Amino acid sequence: MLESTICTLIGISRSGYGSDVDIDSVCVVLVLREGILEMYNILNGIENVNPEQSSTLVCTETTENEDIDLEWQRAISGQTPGSFSPSYLLPADSGEGVTFAFLEQLMDILLQYILKSFDRSTKVIDFHYPNDLLEGFNWELDEQPNTLEDILMSCRTTLKYAVKTGHPRYFNQLSTGLDMVGLAADWLTSTANTNMFTYEIAPVFVLLEYITLKKMRAMIGWPGGCGDGIFSPGGAISNMYAMLIARYKLFPEVKEKGMAAIPKLIAFTSEHSHFSIKKSAAALGIGMDGVVLIKCDVRGRIIPSDLERRILEVRQKGFVPFYVSATAGTTVYGAFDPLVAIADICKKYNIWMHVDAAWGGGLLMSRKHRWKLNGVERACSVTWNPHKMMGVPLQCSALLVREEGLLQSCNQMNACYLFQTDKQYDLSYDTGDKALQCGRHVDIFKLWLMWRAKGTMGFEAQIDKCLDLAEYLYNKIKDREGFEMVFDGKPQHTNVCFWYVPPSVRYIQDKEERRNLLMKVAPQIKTRMMAFGTTMVSYQPQGDKVNFFRMVISNPAATQEDIDFLIEEIERLGHDL
Amino acid sequence: MLESTICTLIGISRSGYGSDVDIDSVCVVLVLREGILEMYNILNGIENVNPEQSSTLVCTETTENEDIDLEWQRAISGQTPGSFSPSYLLPADSGEGVTFAFLEQLMDILLQYILKSFDRSTKVIDFHYPNDLLEGFNWELDEQPNTLEDILMSCRTTLKYAVKTGHPRYFNQLSTGLDMVGLAADWLTSTANTNMFTYEIAPVFVLLEYITLKKMRAMIGWPGGCGDGIFSPGGAISNMYAMLIARYKLFPEVKEKGMAAIPKLIAFTSEHSHFSIKKSAAALGIGMDGVVLIKCDVRGRIIPSDLERRILEVRQKGFVPFYVSATAGTTVYGAFDPLVAIADICKKYNIWMHVDAAWGGGLLMSRKHRWKLNGVERACSVTWNPHKMMGVPLQCSALLVREEGLLQSCNQMNACYLFQTDKQYDLSYDTGDKALQCGRHVDIFKLWLMWRAKGTMGFEAQIDKCLDLAEYLYNKIKDREGFEMVFDGKPQHTNVCFWYVPPSVRYIQDKEERRNLLMKVAPQIKTRMMAFGTTMVSYQPQGDKVNFFRMVISNPAATQEDIDFLIEEIERLGHDL
Repeated sequence: MLESTICTLIGISRSGYGSDVDIDSVCVVLVLREGILEMYNILNGIENVNPEQSSTLVCTETTENEDIDLEWQRAISGQTPGSFSPSYLLPADSGEGVTFAFLEQLMDILLQYILKSFDRSTKVIDFHYPNDLLEGFNWELDEQPNTLEDILMSCRTTLKYAVKTGHPRYFNQLSTGLDMVGLAADWLTSTANTNMFTYEIAPVFVLLEYITLKKMRAMIGWPGGCGDGIFSPGGAISNMYAMLIARYKLFPEVKEKGMAAIPKLIAFTSEHSHFSIKKSAAALGIGMDGVVLIKCDVRGRIIPSDLERRILEVRQKGFVPFYVSATAGTTVYGAFDPLVAIADICKKYNIWMHVDAAWGGGLLMSRKHRWKLNGVERACSVTWNPHKMMGVPLQCSALLVREEGLLQSCNQMNACYLFQTDKQYDLSYDTGDKALQCGRHVDIFKLWLMWRAKGTMGFEAQIDKCLDLAEYLYNKIKDREGFEMVFDGKPQHTNVCFWYVPPSVRYIQDKEERRNLLMKVAPQIKTRMMAFGTTMVSYQPQGDKVNFFRMVISNPAATQEDIDFLIEEIERLGHDL
Repeated sequence: MLESTICTLIGISRSGYGSDVDIDSVCVVLVLREGILEMYNILNGIENVNPEQSSTLVCTETTENEDIDLEWQRAISGQTPGSFSPSYLLPADSGEGVTFAFLEQLMDILLQYILKSFDRSTKVIDFHYPNDLLEGFNWELDEQPNTLEDILMSCRTTLKYAVKTGHPRYFNQLSTGLDMVGLAADWLTSTANTNMFTYEIAPVFVLLEYITLKKMRAMIGWPGGCGDGIFSPGGAISNMYAMLIARYKLFPEVKEKGMAAIPKLIAFTSEHSHFSIKKSAAALGIGMDGVVLIKCDVRGRIIPSDLERRILEVRQKGFVPFYVSATAGTTVYGAFDPLVAIADICKKYNIWMHVDAAWGGGLLMSRKHRWKLNGVERACSVTWNPHKMMGVPLQCSALLVREEGLLQSCNQMNACYLFQTDKQYDLSYDTGDKALQCGRHVDIFKLWLMWRAKGTMGFEAQIDKCLDLAEYLYNKIKDREGFEMVFDGKPQHTNVCFWYVPPSVRYIQDKEERRNLLMKVAPQIKTRMMAFGTTMVSYQPQGDKVNFFRMVISNPAATQEDIDFLIEEIERLGHDL
């Protein structure tokens, strides 16, 4: 009896594999949670269990113990083995046992994935070409349901071929890392499964958004954290919001009458800025030719005199300069535009100043680095993505706006089925009509909970460490044979841009020949990197510079050892090219 | 020894509450997982444990058993009690024990919430006014970190005041329910924490999106599932995508030159359609006056002859009718526009036909109800939100497009830092440049996994059941005293619109007086409903009709008993008004 009770308690589940299986010899599916397995063994006098097998589904043919059989049948609510199917999950009557067993098995899979994510001896990616992955498994959607066994297997397979974005050697994107508190918060968010549009259905999340946006505005430097804001589905949409309200501020009639009723508008941004500025202009009906790209210095920072010159040019043509999008942390170079000089120009010409700090905003948390954003407090709007430098799980992007009420008046449609005016509570908490979206995903809780857990000082330490690592990398490669920096000087952000020049290219004098060879090096190394799965780092050309590596560090799991590894791995993979 | 081993294994954790606590008398935090508790008790000879206490944090002062002490210290990796803080979570060295204990405690909290969500004896909402909720707890973000105890407490508090959107008596929005497989998939998605823009970093998710979109297009009726599509952050954005590409298809130069370079565009949609059509027009620079609202019949369906008349009017003015957004399942009435007649008109005048089936798309899964969308196969684009009628966790919205390549050419910016053209794999799987966003959240896995689990037939059964319940409700109230239908006839979707007329209003002859009283009834009942927390249903006015209840059923947990309860609860809360 004790044995069978324990078997049930610890989730040892048994299911048949269809009705054609001999009921006396069905598979016992042992869900072996680490430790639980050990206890099970202690109680059963079993020794020598391989710990590697914990948390895997071990299927063995066996003859049934009647007691276990009874318990298991009770666990799946009176259903016979073989009928283990989603219809027995909650909200089904007595679905609790199956549901908990299912979610706990899933949890095991996730915990094992988390462990592997942080384990340097595992691959960052087990890469397969699209067709191989498509054909290697049955991913199809059928008329018939599948068993929960199949569902769990699908989860395992999906994670097996996933890129471990939390791996200490994953440097491929601006968003890396896997924060445990952020993850917990995201699980809770999924479980709460609600929508941000009204206080009525998301009371706590709406309040936490209010509190957090205020805190972020205070960190930008707006007095008392005053202003407005919204969390949006990514930096590109946040930037689009900013352009949208800037246009509305200048010409509110555009909302009713469209672009045809107002003069030609021109936006300004640097040639190193993010593509979403042009994408926004295209979508909003301003047109890509309504975006003027301003020249940058060698470090990728806007040249203010060029900005002013182009503004004057545009005005002379009779167009309306309405928007400057400065960048705090460009995507490739990690450059910070000179915000104070830009603010002066925007003030002089009465132009909306937006700061795209999607990538650089995190530095506001750092007493050591926040000077790089000096002048951001003079912006009319700021994009800041906590899912980048602050390591919040995807997606978490905020648009902060200095003027309160503008988001609402620009976007509101007063849909009375949602934003009833005769509700019993303060309607200013129904934020849905500020948004371009109707339903809006809850992105706030993971940021808020991480902030609670780390405190501002925790974010600061994490960010400072990443910047230190970038400097460490820069110092290691700046004079190293075979490495060539794309621009000189210490990195402003964690972006370190460099070429690896293999021996065969190193001594070629002909510039054109060298260029042609060098442009192929990074893609080839990257291909090998993916095949080995040891690390991932991005590359791209920029302007007249051929493919170079853009190293970025936003992953709190990375250490100097990982930086050393990256350098040596690039050499190992590239020296024979 | 056995006891201490088991204590460690099953997650009995102990932490001090700061360094000033007597180490001989610290709190023992017992994480009492159901069953595990029982086992612990069996092994310790404890009886009479209250099962209600399972999975709560029970803090009791106690003198320590040295063995447990040792094990616990080992579990938190050599840290002393009292220093249980986020910095000991992974990726910290030896952070595994603390991390697993933390996540398992969180998991307990979530499992309890899930159980309560489906328990009719619990409240749907524990409502508090914004200021009370703000002031009742410390939600502030500080300089200093908080302990994991505080973090878990924050999770509990957040869920305590959350709206249980999976509760069988939650009918407030079009998105209700809590699907266990969908939830598992969302937890996995959070854990994988990646981004949809390239195959490189989301290989499986990109393929699953490809497979699922194709399947959805096949269900729409496009031959072989051909075409294109994208998952977007909600129906409003999907509708915006549709209008964006419709405009681009007719005038591709708008991308470069903006709205000023093209004629005035006019879109058409019904007066019952979703506000996102006008919102899109405002954002895209078309202007709200570029949207003509077409008259509906008493059931909220577009009148095709009025559509054609307005198209001709617009053409006579020299404007360009470019877009018709038909609705399959309107937000309030649940009406299905006559798609075949609309398709004929769109063909005749060469206008892009979009179908906003955000709410009604789910009926494509039902052999019994899909005829309501007849003609959808002639649309150029379709919005379909699986997070509504199909019960997929938020957010999950698809835009399907018949013409392949249009999304890409309309939105692409060819950012070379992301979409390198010299990658080793088939670049058609890098879908990021189709999107308005740059980073794009992984919304596909929960839909795909639920589809695997249920099969198409599972979705069909779930949807048919909801429609049956709506008909059950309709039949129960259509002749019931005190209830008045907003429109006659069986519901087309699960929307059932009705007034509850309290006795005091029931016999008033003066129409104006009756109207003025009746408009206040639904808000008052709703306020009481929220205060009691027993159920939630939406209300709103529509056109000249004063506030009425809009009942919608998309929650698979709802039964006839819950419908009965709703009716009686409205009577109970409203009879004295």
